[in-house]
Amino acid sequence: MSQKEIPYKIYLEENETPTAWYNLRADMKNKPAPLLNPATHEPMSKEDLAPVFCEELVNQELDNTTRLIHIPKEIRDFYKMYRPSPLVRAYCLEEKLQTPAKIYYKFEGNNTSGSHKLNSAIAQAYYAKKQGLKGVTTETGAGQWGTALSMACSYFGLDCKVFMVKVSYEQKPFRREVMRTYGASVTPSPSNETNVGRKILEEFPGTGGSLGCAISEAVEVAVSTPGYRYVLGSVLNQVLLHQSVIGLETKAALDKYGIKPDMIIGCAGGGSNLGGLIAPFMGEKLRGEADYRIIAVEPASCPSFTRGTYAYDFCDTGMVCPLAKMYTLGSSFMPAPNHAGGLRYHGMSSTLSQLYDDGLMEAVSVKQTDVFAAAEQFARVEGILPAPESSHAIKVAIDEALRCKENGEEKTIVFGLTGTGYFDLVAYQKFHDGQMDDYIPSDEEIAESLKKLPQF
Amino acid sequence: MSQKEIPYKIYLEENETPTAWYNLRADMKNKPAPLLNPATHEPMSKEDLAPVFCEELVNQELDNTTRLIHIPKEIRDFYKMYRPSPLVRAYCLEEKLQTPAKIYYKFEGNNTSGSHKLNSAIAQAYYAKKQGLKGVTTETGAGQWGTALSMACSYFGLDCKVFMVKVSYEQKPFRREVMRTYGASVTPSPSNETNVGRKILEEFPGTGGSLGCAISEAVEVAVSTPGYRYVLGSVLNQVLLHQSVIGLETKAALDKYGIKPDMIIGCAGGGSNLGGLIAPFMGEKLRGEADYRIIAVEPASCPSFTRGTYAYDFCDTGMVCPLAKMYTLGSSFMPAPNHAGGLRYHGMSSTLSQLYDDGLMEAVSVKQTDVFAAAEQFARVEGILPAPESSHAIKVAIDEALRCKENGEEKTIVFGLTGTGYFDLVAYQKFHDGQMDDYIPSDEEIAESLKKLPQF
Repeated sequence: MSQKEIPYKIYLEENETPTAWYNLRADMKNKPAPLLNPATHEPMSKEDLAPVFCEELVNQELDNTTRLIHIPKEIRDFYKMYRPSPLVRAYCLEEKLQTPAKIYYKFEGNNTSGSHKLNSAIAQAYYAKKQGLKGVTTETGAGQWGTALSMACSYFGLDCKVFMVKVSYEQKPFRREVMRTYGASVTPSPSNETNVGRKILEEFPGTGGSLGCAISEAVEVAVSTPGYRYVLGSVLNQVLLHQSVIGLETKAALDKYGIKPDMIIGCAGGGSNLGGLIAPFMGEKLRGEADYRIIAVEPASCPSFTRGTYAYDFCDTGMVCPLAKMYTLGSSFMPAPNHAGGLRYHGMSSTLSQLYDDGLMEAVSVKQTDVFAAAEQFARVEGILPAPESSHAIKVAIDEALRCKENGEEKTIVFGLTGTGYFDLVAYQKFHDGQMDDYIPSDEEIAESLKKLPQF
Repeated sequence: MSQKEIPYKIYLEENETPTAWYNLRADMKNKPAPLLNPATHEPMSKEDLAPVFCEELVNQELDNTTRLIHIPKEIRDFYKMYRPSPLVRAYCLEEKLQTPAKIYYKFEGNNTSGSHKLNSAIAQAYYAKKQGLKGVTTETGAGQWGTALSMACSYFGLDCKVFMVKVSYEQKPFRREVMRTYGASVTPSPSNETNVGRKILEEFPGTGGSLGCAISEAVEVAVSTPGYRYVLGSVLNQVLLHQSVIGLETKAALDKYGIKPDMIIGCAGGGSNLGGLIAPFMGEKLRGEADYRIIAVEPASCPSFTRGTYAYDFCDTGMVCPLAKMYTLGSSFMPAPNHAGGLRYHGMSSTLSQLYDDGLMEAVSVKQTDVFAAAEQFARVEGILPAPESSHAIKVAIDEALRCKENGEEKTIVFGLTGTGYFDLVAYQKFHDGQMDDYIPSDEEIAESLKKLPQF
């Protein structure tokens, strides 16, 4: 098919959109390692998980065999408000780079939460509502997940209680206001509302909080309040399952025009976007039906795939959650204050970790200033102001397109543009003012953190 | 056609999008009054306007007869990056209101500038480039227009010099950073770079600036720098012409499903969005082919249609621009500090003013807290966080839908959702905290300002 017959944006019709999520684990020969009970080191059972998570979500978390899981009509109706998201042919970027490569990106930022997080938030809120719950609790750092969850809860009339890391609460009042607009209660963490919060405040009266502490508070409120459960926006199997809608739509749009990508690129923090984007492509690869290069991009400041180790670790710095086997820098690893936002997690989804360990995907790490330079280049030609997270994928897509130019190869590149950068302009400002640094952790720093992995 | 056959979002295919703008003036029996030279009170000629504006844009400004003006390929290519914009059926809002009315909105916020302003910015940048100019100057208050223009100039490789009202420059650093990301130079106004700026700074050293002063600086730089012209984002005929793409797409999408609206609602500041949205519908009305209720919504704090007078007035508070005949509160009218953003202009497009004076459209004014309550209600069910400007139209669309419910009428309502509210969260915060007031100017205040209209 000639290049010009492919529109700038490929939209699917409503009847071409997925009716089931794809559970990648069903096609994995080596299944992801199970979550372990931190006390007994036994795999977490349904009963272990039920006090914390909704029943149906626990089922999805533990289900390694069902390939397709029906998307309930209520969730599909919500998806219709902002999905299908466009698959965009980056004609302008290609021209700017003068590359023979064909570049496509799946844009997940066209909804008020500004990112792909909404795909799982609405599913989790739906199952909470279906179970007859009154509300859910969660934590948020920068606020992307909290925003998505507050929108989802507002739609289903659920209470939404967000513990927001105090320093973010104070420095990012706009994210907080969006959550309030959607009726969420937003509490700076640590707070006086929980035992763990009070304890931390007593010990460190001036602390700005941490994600680990916010998780602990959110879990405490969920398990101690009748009718509440805790929800999480990344890392978990259930989240990757819901996010498979990204990849399924991408594949349907490509198939519609007979396009077969050579490589699929996504940024990786906890793995929610990458796991969703690559799902159906990785499925074909696992079943031996097709081959693709699949590339995870992580920040050089927090390189869990490229410099971490594959081991059981705590999911949170507070060490209250189950143990997960994953590529990790150690739960005590503190990434330098930087602007990789949602990519500053010390570990990585168990599913993606297993696939990476099995040699089914690659990983690269990129420096922050290079990421922002790519973001700016992209914004100027493609119009969209990208989130810093998404810009990690942009950076590597541009690198690969330039390599195609060098080698005269007409490869087809697909990358995930997970969100918009409207709430990240402090970072853009630092970049413009030349005040952004490229901190890269030393080998010693990582080794020190890995020494504290749980031993058993 | 049954309700459920109509999708949530009606997208046009690329080949269904407009190839020409529609010049509403061609169908007006009573043409809009011409701009007058402030010194001679004679109509501004092409020669009078050429030192300030690009040639082709002057032609468009003065052309009251050509009905369809071809959209150049270069502009259509850019439109393809973010257009066609979706026409959304507000199923969720309808259900929430339990109204028999059918509500549609044309959503113009799905681009990085966050509003419809980009439709005219790209056209103006194109004609500047085509004329071989080096760059353009403009002013911006809140920053919506400056953002759109910086994106457009970046695309065509034009210099973009934005004078940003100093108080906004300091209070809205994020808008400034978006403009810088697109390579624009942003100068707080008043500045030391112009005669008028230096004069004002000498007289009022601590001033936070004003739109009138920023216009004067932008015009001074444009006319005194070789290869530069001045561009403007609203009020002018040329801007309404470019914005007709909104209405043309809306009408094409409705026609595709055989839908005939009963009323069309848009917010009105200078008139750029409203004039564009209603253009083809008003055209049918002018030609006697169809009838529609057309409703302009303005803030009660700045009610030029509903409480102003129809007279020649200065377009800017600095009184350097041509005189325009329009509904006006007087160029010395100072709207109370509020959050209507782009709707705080003292006057109104000459074209819309003539149509209103001829009884072809209605106008209503709404209070600020009512507007934000409607915005929040809309956000919670439809997902999108609306701009305060757009929320004026939401408020009246909801009012009309509730009237339908009362009367058991199945009317079809179309309104313009011009943009998103990501940069307006300070206003949302005030609303949430109960700190937003509803200042309405007194009759005496308006009369006092109208006394200063130019007399001749």
